Amino acid sequence: MTDRPLSLSATSRTRLRRMKEKGRTRPEDLFAVLRAGFVAHLGVVVDGHPMVVPTVYGFDEENIFFHGSVASRSLTTDAEVCLTVTLLEGLVLARSVFEHGINYHSAMIYGTPRTATGDDAKLYGLRLLTEHVAPGQWDYVRQPSRKELAATALLSLSLAEASVKIRTGPPDDGDSPDAELGLWAGELPVVPRWDQPVPDPALPRPVPALPAHIAGLVGRRLNRG
Amino acid sequence: MTDRPLSLSATSRTRLRRMKEKGRTRPEDLFAVLRAGFVAHLGVVVDGHPMVVPTVYGFDEENIFFHGSVASRSLTTDAEVCLTVTLLEGLVLARSVFEHGINYHSAMIYGTPRTATGDDAKLYGLRLLTEHVAPGQWDYVRQPSRKELAATALLSLSLAEASVKIRTGPPDDGDSPDAELGLWAGELPVVPRWDQPVPDPALPRPVPALPAHIAGLVGRRLNRG
Repeated sequence: MTDRPLSLSATSRTRLRRMKEKGRTRPEDLFAVLRAGFVAHLGVVVDGHPMVVPTVYGFDEENIFFHGSVASRSLTTDAEVCLTVTLLEGLVLARSVFEHGINYHSAMIYGTPRTATGDDAKLYGLRLLTEHVAPGQWDYVRQPSRKELAATALLSLSLAEASVKIRTGPPDDGDSPDAELGLWAGELPVVPRWDQPVPDPALPRPVPALPAHIAGLVGRRLNRG
Repeated sequence: MTDRPLSLSATSRTRLRRMKEKGRTRPEDLFAVLRAGFVAHLGVVVDGHPMVVPTVYGFDEENIFFHGSVASRSLTTDAEVCLTVTLLEGLVLARSVFEHGINYHSAMIYGTPRTATGDDAKLYGLRLLTEHVAPGQWDYVRQPSRKELAATALLSLSLAEASVKIRTGPPDDGDSPDAELGLWAGELPVVPRWDQPVPDPALPRPVPALPAHIAGLVGRRLNRG
């Protein structure tokens, strides 16, 4: 990740109308969400109807990459998408139902994806995808054959039009009349962690050693170290 | 949750074209995803462009409920939506880059939301929303005033048109030539758990006791008991 500033545009879509206090447009906030996330939700319009599908992704300083196959039903040339990555941080437990909510980081990226053409472009994006969640895995496993690359539809989407929303901290009713109720209030965090690996039953005996780059993830928080 | 069978329709949208082997249409699979999930991603079409926003939800046997405010920029009367709930189960670590993937459960619900009108309808949906992730919280905190209810936009979406996709288990290349590579392969699960609660700094001293229904969640897997 470079420190080179990236200017996130404020179009009519990313100029947040609701909850303005939650809006962030700093590139480092966008990259923080993308680094910590795992699955994005891709929104497309199919015959005028919205459709949202989950997909894994990778990214560099300028683009986010994902498999074209996830949207094969829907993504035609020049189709606009919205790619949203949400980090759920926890439940905001207030003194009244009305003030309840969630703490989260959310990034929305808008634009028209480009299809990667050529082996080099596909390998570049696939490597980012593979390395995003399990660094070291690309060099550990067999890399794509030309035939596999030909069968791979890889899309990239510019990060130029993006917005980030963040809500953190305690509930907002700490100085309201409800504070007199004497109730406990605060945040209940949710933390996703890598659990114990489950070996493929098809592995030979003795089972090959778990590689260090995977063993090092076990028990750790997803993408946070 | 009732055992009453719910017929999930197979429209052109929910008749899965890709990855047919992953398609499930049993109502119990849909309810299992909704029970275990926390945040849904709501897809809408705004001026012809897709937009995807995260939102919390609640549900009963026939509908899923969410706040209208999350989509206030976009949701007009008769606007169709797609609401997707994804449970990320883990990373599928194969012997080749090409066979990598994720294990997940994903539910997509299509339709046109209805706006709840009247205090009773709003209270019904809000209670499901609040109790979904933190059962017991509705009765612990102050319930909505009439003024708060008037300020609440609550939407419901029928579960009648829904599809569920599931991928579980080891990678698919256990009997491929790549099995000869001698690499470790399998699944690296991701587990979201409730972490230690963070009290609101505005709480009086001594801090009110953490209620049992929240204390009972700590360390447990999200919505899985």
